[in-house]
Amino acid sequence: MTDQFAKKGEAWSARFSEPVSDLVKRYTASVFFDNRMAQVDIQGSLAHAEMLAHQGIISAADYAEIQRGMAQIKGEIEAGQFEWLLDLEDVHLNIEKRLTELVGDAGKRLHTGRSRNDQVATDIRLYMRGAVDDIIGLLRELRLALLDLAEQHADTILPGFTHMQVAQPITFGHHVLAYVEMFGRDAERMIDARKRINRLPLGAAALAGTTFPIDRLRVAKTLGFDDVCRNSLDAVSDRDFAIEFCAGAALVMTHISRMSEELVIWMSPRVGFIDIADRFCTGSSIMPQKKNPDVPELARGKTGRVNGHLIALLTLMKGQPLAYNKDNQEDKEPLFDTVDTLTDTLRIFADMARGISVKPEAMRAAALQGYATATDLADYLVKKGLPFRDAHEAVAHAVRTCVDKGCDLADLSLADLRAFSDLIGEDVFAVLTLEGSVAARDHIGGTAPKQVRAAIAQLRKELN
Amino acid sequence: MTDQFAKKGEAWSARFSEPVSDLVKRYTASVFFDNRMAQVDIQGSLAHAEMLAHQGIISAADYAEIQRGMAQIKGEIEAGQFEWLLDLEDVHLNIEKRLTELVGDAGKRLHTGRSRNDQVATDIRLYMRGAVDDIIGLLRELRLALLDLAEQHADTILPGFTHMQVAQPITFGHHVLAYVEMFGRDAERMIDARKRINRLPLGAAALAGTTFPIDRLRVAKTLGFDDVCRNSLDAVSDRDFAIEFCAGAALVMTHISRMSEELVIWMSPRVGFIDIADRFCTGSSIMPQKKNPDVPELARGKTGRVNGHLIALLTLMKGQPLAYNKDNQEDKEPLFDTVDTLTDTLRIFADMARGISVKPEAMRAAALQGYATATDLADYLVKKGLPFRDAHEAVAHAVRTCVDKGCDLADLSLADLRAFSDLIGEDVFAVLTLEGSVAARDHIGGTAPKQVRAAIAQLRKELN
Amino acid sequence: MTDQFAKKGEAWSARFSEPVSDLVKRYTASVFFDNRMAQVDIQGSLAHAEMLAHQGIISAADYAEIQRGMAQIKGEIEAGQFEWLLDLEDVHLNIEKRLTELVGDAGKRLHTGRSRNDQVATDIRLYMRGAVDDIIGLLRELRLALLDLAEQHADTILPGFTHMQVAQPITFGHHVLAYVEMFGRDAERMIDARKRINRLPLGAAALAGTTFPIDRLRVAKTLGFDDVCRNSLDAVSDRDFAIEFCAGAALVMTHISRMSEELVIWMSPRVGFIDIADRFCTGSSIMPQKKNPDVPELARGKTGRVNGHLIALLTLMKGQPLAYNKDNQEDKEPLFDTVDTLTDTLRIFADMARGISVKPEAMRAAALQGYATATDLADYLVKKGLPFRDAHEAVAHAVRTCVDKGCDLADLSLADLRAFSDLIGEDVFAVLTLEGSVAARDHIGGTAPKQVRAAIAQLRKELN
Amino acid sequence: MTDQFAKKGEAWSARFSEPVSDLVKRYTASVFFDNRMAQVDIQGSLAHAEMLAHQGIISAADYAEIQRGMAQIKGEIEAGQFEWLLDLEDVHLNIEKRLTELVGDAGKRLHTGRSRNDQVATDIRLYMRGAVDDIIGLLRELRLALLDLAEQHADTILPGFTHMQVAQPITFGHHVLAYVEMFGRDAERMIDARKRINRLPLGAAALAGTTFPIDRLRVAKTLGFDDVCRNSLDAVSDRDFAIEFCAGAALVMTHISRMSEELVIWMSPRVGFIDIADRFCTGSSIMPQKKNPDVPELARGKTGRVNGHLIALLTLMKGQPLAYNKDNQEDKEPLFDTVDTLTDTLRIFADMARGISVKPEAMRAAALQGYATATDLADYLVKKGLPFRDAHEAVAHAVRTCVDKGCDLADLSLADLRAFSDLIGEDVFAVLTLEGSVAARDHIGGTAPKQVRAAIAQLRKELN
Repeated sequence: MTDQFAKKGEAWSARFSEPVSDLVKRYTASVFFDNRMAQVDIQGSLAHAEMLAHQGIISAADYAEIQRGMAQIKGEIEAGQFEWLLDLEDVHLNIEKRLTELVGDAGKRLHTGRSRNDQVATDIRLYMRGAVDDIIGLLRELRLALLDLAEQHADTILPGFTHMQVAQPITFGHHVLAYVEMFGRDAERMIDARKRINRLPLGAAALAGTTFPIDRLRVAKTLGFDDVCRNSLDAVSDRDFAIEFCAGAALVMTHISRMSEELVIWMSPRVGFIDIADRFCTGSSIMPQKKNPDVPELARGKTGRVNGHLIALLTLMKGQPLAYNKDNQEDKEPLFDTVDTLTDTLRIFADMARGISVKPEAMRAAALQGYATATDLADYLVKKGLPFRDAHEAVAHAVRTCVDKGCDLADLSLADLRAFSDLIGEDVFAVLTLEGSVAARDHIGGTAPKQVRAAIAQLRKELN
Repeated sequence: MTDQFAKKGEAWSARFSEPVSDLVKRYTASVFFDNRMAQVDIQGSLAHAEMLAHQGIISAADYAEIQRGMAQIKGEIEAGQFEWLLDLEDVHLNIEKRLTELVGDAGKRLHTGRSRNDQVATDIRLYMRGAVDDIIGLLRELRLALLDLAEQHADTILPGFTHMQVAQPITFGHHVLAYVEMFGRDAERMIDARKRINRLPLGAAALAGTTFPIDRLRVAKTLGFDDVCRNSLDAVSDRDFAIEFCAGAALVMTHISRMSEELVIWMSPRVGFIDIADRFCTGSSIMPQKKNPDVPELARGKTGRVNGHLIALLTLMKGQPLAYNKDNQEDKEPLFDTVDTLTDTLRIFADMARGISVKPEAMRAAALQGYATATDLADYLVKKGLPFRDAHEAVAHAVRTCVDKGCDLADLSLADLRAFSDLIGEDVFAVLTLEGSVAARDHIGGTAPKQVRAAIAQLRKELN
Repeated sequence: MTDQFAKKGEAWSARFSEPVSDLVKRYTASVFFDNRMAQVDIQGSLAHAEMLAHQGIISAADYAEIQRGMAQIKGEIEAGQFEWLLDLEDVHLNIEKRLTELVGDAGKRLHTGRSRNDQVATDIRLYMRGAVDDIIGLLRELRLALLDLAEQHADTILPGFTHMQVAQPITFGHHVLAYVEMFGRDAERMIDARKRINRLPLGAAALAGTTFPIDRLRVAKTLGFDDVCRNSLDAVSDRDFAIEFCAGAALVMTHISRMSEELVIWMSPRVGFIDIADRFCTGSSIMPQKKNPDVPELARGKTGRVNGHLIALLTLMKGQPLAYNKDNQEDKEPLFDTVDTLTDTLRIFADMARGISVKPEAMRAAALQGYATATDLADYLVKKGLPFRDAHEAVAHAVRTCVDKGCDLADLSLADLRAFSDLIGEDVFAVLTLEGSVAARDHIGGTAPKQVRAAIAQLRKELN
Repeated sequence: MTDQFAKKGEAWSARFSEPVSDLVKRYTASVFFDNRMAQVDIQGSLAHAEMLAHQGIISAADYAEIQRGMAQIKGEIEAGQFEWLLDLEDVHLNIEKRLTELVGDAGKRLHTGRSRNDQVATDIRLYMRGAVDDIIGLLRELRLALLDLAEQHADTILPGFTHMQVAQPITFGHHVLAYVEMFGRDAERMIDARKRINRLPLGAAALAGTTFPIDRLRVAKTLGFDDVCRNSLDAVSDRDFAIEFCAGAALVMTHISRMSEELVIWMSPRVGFIDIADRFCTGSSIMPQKKNPDVPELARGKTGRVNGHLIALLTLMKGQPLAYNKDNQEDKEPLFDTVDTLTDTLRIFADMARGISVKPEAMRAAALQGYATATDLADYLVKKGLPFRDAHEAVAHAVRTCVDKGCDLADLSLADLRAFSDLIGEDVFAVLTLEGSVAARDHIGGTAPKQVRAAIAQLRKELN
């Protein structure tokens, strides 16, 4: 009797009376994007076969044949010699068909006790586990690069902005550490997501489990899974882990978008806080003078792509009845593209962080503009006994006078200042300096250089 | 003096001191996805060159050379012999570089008075105009196929559902026409979007226009644009048309998802209203009996992809300052994938509509279940003089009795029925039949077969 | 016999054996947000009743009673005296119940030949039509305010940016006109959406039409609809118009977000191109000097809200089988909030546009930085005979020299400049001025003040 | 000197020259939605004041006054007597202003060493921590209700579906457990998100920390936070926790949407697997027989709302420069509505789970249709020695014959069956029974009643 793949070009199986139309074949086939899971598919199949043999469901000889065939297929794929066929729909049938060509009946026994439904769910999880591990590593690389930048500029003062208006002086090192925190949370979330990725669906078969005496825990152990999925219907239809990963990825890209926005603004000539090395920039086809910060701009744009993939997956799963439906095949492209986008973006940002030149003089000049130390003056008044709300109002009067005069607070004479509060004395000028201002914010999380260095040291410890 | 592309491998232009890093090159290059715009890029360049020559900005000889070179490039691309180079970033520079190889200085003059910013905006619009025209055509094909199906079943009665509960009897033809309406609105929206696509950005140059005496209306006429974009900053940064198209596409896919949901439910054995031809279905790797409606399931899943692309583009444009930013390069992949998804899905649905077999007996059996004619009974009472709200309540009592007895309304005797209202007479049984019920809804948009046929005739007229 | 609302607190109708649980009542009731449709609900009911009377389905006396009752209810609602009851679920049943209290059996006859399904669809469309008309008016107001601003600054030069890097000099009037174009397209889209909103669903009844001899065209005419929905199943389940509106709204907010981003950056002290009047700003609870551009920031944030509502509606409709399902009740809150957000934002922006003070000297200073006229120099060389690509490269060399020297192009001597191309003569310095540069871009859509004024004149004509 | 709030109606502070316009006031005010944080705002302020007093920044007397004032305010709010004023913008200023009315200068000292930026961030986290704890509790309630349902039906057989086609027999208990797993993962994710919510931002002040000698760890301890946010810029601008929560919520609602879809289909008369108690259903205004599953339908629709809020927040944060911007105020409404939607939906579903009546006979009838045991037959052949792929093909032939004959596999005679494989013997009929089929899937996660009971026991243990 011929096996069911022998004539897939004619009909799907003996149950069908006509072949799948060519348009449908192209529409429904996944082989040209899911073949990136070829290696994990083989890894999963070998673990399944090992268990089948151990349980006596297939013979040791069959297992040996499957091992032999898979070794050859693995080689063919690595060498780029494997021929992927549209007629065989997906990575799974392509490999199984080739295995049967190579090893005959042993190959036809591989699918005993499993279904494509649990097979593909296993493959995606194996693939995602690897991808998440890479991303965790890349987040660490990026954070290390940012820590180096922060350390170089633990004392470099620039204006801290809220509402894009000058707020208070901060150090650039402190500012950079904000991103180190964000990417640190991203890594935490990836680690949490990994726990839910690393559970084995295999053994769920089509949806209900199998009649063969399988040992799921054995397969889980072979493949390094922490646990097995505990309900077979859920196992084949669950794509939570993909959505959770994409949500985590959207946050990574949100942080990248914020950092990019700042890099682009900082490199704009009116601001001029930094320059980005030429190797991360390109020019204009028409304007010969242009040097554009392409990388952060493009990365900022790629936030959209990842937000979009998150919505694609949520839309995909909305209202799907149990168990597996073909809709689920649409999970792969958004997921793969999200992995690629994150991987490329994190790698390039870790690299680019080392290509940022800081211009401390421009930062300092900006910090001297915009009444950055007004809060220090208010705090000074509070320390002299004025309630904070009254101090705030007194300084607001002083600032308004400066705005009208076109001068800075430090430009006012002591007499001028005392017009706003007679609590002000000679010692006020020390609190109006940039250095005094940043040094005074000396507590956990504050911008004082001492605190910045302590934070860097602590983070380095955690990252090693 | 060497031209700026001669050593792109070394540095972007003479303004740069180091080459773009390889990782950045790959990250920022678009040539491997934007080369699908090659033909429209050439078309746009030829129209630009024609205008430059007509205006005396370049010589007639240069224009002839550009024509000659472009003809060869067009041939090379069609023959699959054109070599796309990553180093040259995108489709535009790849073609311009090749042109200069082929025709020398004339090629270097092509970019006079334009920038990649307005060039790419023009290319996308040319591409989108063609795509939208295809989609309008495919929507028409699908509607014609559905009209045929509706016509075959203008008299076939099935239960109309609200809340998935039996509501009132309808005809299958009437049900199918609901989709004809939806896809008709989709076509309207595509036609409206086309108006805003079909405006020429070329002449905006980088962002401010050009110092050359160009004639934008001439180029618009050559390329078949209805008008020119009226502000150069807007022209290079506007991606509204892409978002509007994707929003229209999301609605098309929403309609496809609704139709798919119904096809899948209708083909489920408990419902069994239809069968879909084998050529649109596939089987299971483990369950030999399975025949799955893959096409509607997958199409339903693809709704997510298109919703995602819409969000990708909206996120992309959010908060972008004028004028062009590199972020915008991210517009193409979501847009192209949306075009492909729509094109493939509409084509396959038009085909599949002709592969649906309807099972009138199953539909009829279902319509006889669930008190489908209860509203007819209430209307009957109203016509006998009872206010509608009282009639509703009387029939609700009757239905509750039937639920308790496990019978249908038509199974009650006249005496039973009169217990709920003594307005009921012998003539009630006519209004409780399925045929009587559908025939009675005889006004524009109603389910009476007469109205369904009239609607089909009207729609056929509009589609021819 | 009691009518069905008499004991809604006990059971939904006689068909039900227990009352709806309190939690369910609150979960499913819509009356506290859908009562903003009260006036259109009454308007729709009156048109329906008028038609019922005209067709002889109800008596003239009943119609008169309904008119009388509705007039009183309208007054009660306007006076804030109408008591909305959770038990009566929604605006429709609340009003109908009150009507029946006021006019007895005539009130119970109002619902003849219609269902809540077509009633609510009609109400939303009436409401949306009004909302869209308001929004079109507000877009016009905003555009007029921007035109005034553009006209005041048709000659004010600032640097045009691409990639946030200085690109070419432009006029501020030209920049502002870019937004006038965007909001113009928004108005076009609203007008297009209105066509599809303004079709009457009433007459579709529950889903299949009604057995009463209704005249749908008469009702459409009374209510000012352009046409009737042509298929009853589609009529009750279609929410395309809501999605299309929200997609158009998302584009409006995208434009608002871009304008806001620019206002915020322009008001940042390092840029300092504009100031926004105090009445649109607030301060800080801690920093006495702060004046924050709250309105554009908050508006930028509100983009998220509208994008979210668009996704909410698309998700809602995904995969819904025909005809009406309760899911659809979820259309209202996102829709109403989108209307409110747009209405408030457009009104405040039209107002704020008149509270922007421009600082021409800061703009000019910025334009003199960053080699804004490099393209002019390249164009100059082209006009002297050099192919554009060679001219671009020559100027790139010149810019790199300036970057190294820390000077501008205009600071180079003729001799210095001639080192890059011996085609350069004395006349070069004219093309390097800001005024020369902008004046030279003198074609439709270009930044030349002459073109800007012509565009303003044309737009004023269109807006009157 | 007057304090800054004394004349908010006139100007924001002394720094401003005109009052905020009324339209702007309404546009930017948050008090009417953020006052749900009043209790946590007071809680946070008291912890801050306690620390200020402990550190000697304010006096013990001031602290006592603040405690006294806050106790009164708390009472006023609980009693609904607190007057919320638009002029005072938000919950924070409203409470602080009232405090100052009540206790004078002590009230004006409360804001020492903090800003609204860190105050609001603290309030949201306190609020969210409580909300997440509630949701974790509600997920547990729902899972317990589902466990009870599963236990009642550990032996009830229905067809398991894939692609909405009959796949293999499963037990209803097993099916229900799939949802118990989903909601279990949801709880895990909420617990993980809580870790990142429960970190204290207070002490970050505006963005840079404060010059007062604060003790952040002390405040963290008082308020029950696990840790402090380690970087002040990040502390005030981070909204990751809101996005992470909404992403988790979107998954909860995705699971709810899937369960709802199934409930709606199962209650549809053609399927008829279940009935939902009347108290969760409503009727139709026109069709007297209708009983609609409103709750699952509406819940399914609410998935859109939560997906939308997730996108709203992601869009909000995209590209925001550090540190705090007014955009962030837009975080609250989506967040609060997500909390409300989840809380209400989970509560009602836990309740409704106990109102589901299962119809085992309808389930069994359905399982006997559609060749549910075809896989069992293939497995039988494998156990007789046939390779799986050949067994699959043999059974496919048998099914096709049955389809043509219109009978089931069990209806074929032994002779008929042996035509497809001579390995088939008398013992085949045992494997073709529903009970045999489910009992045979006897491994972790399989559908065998024994496994289902074991899973329930394990889950009960974990939930206690």
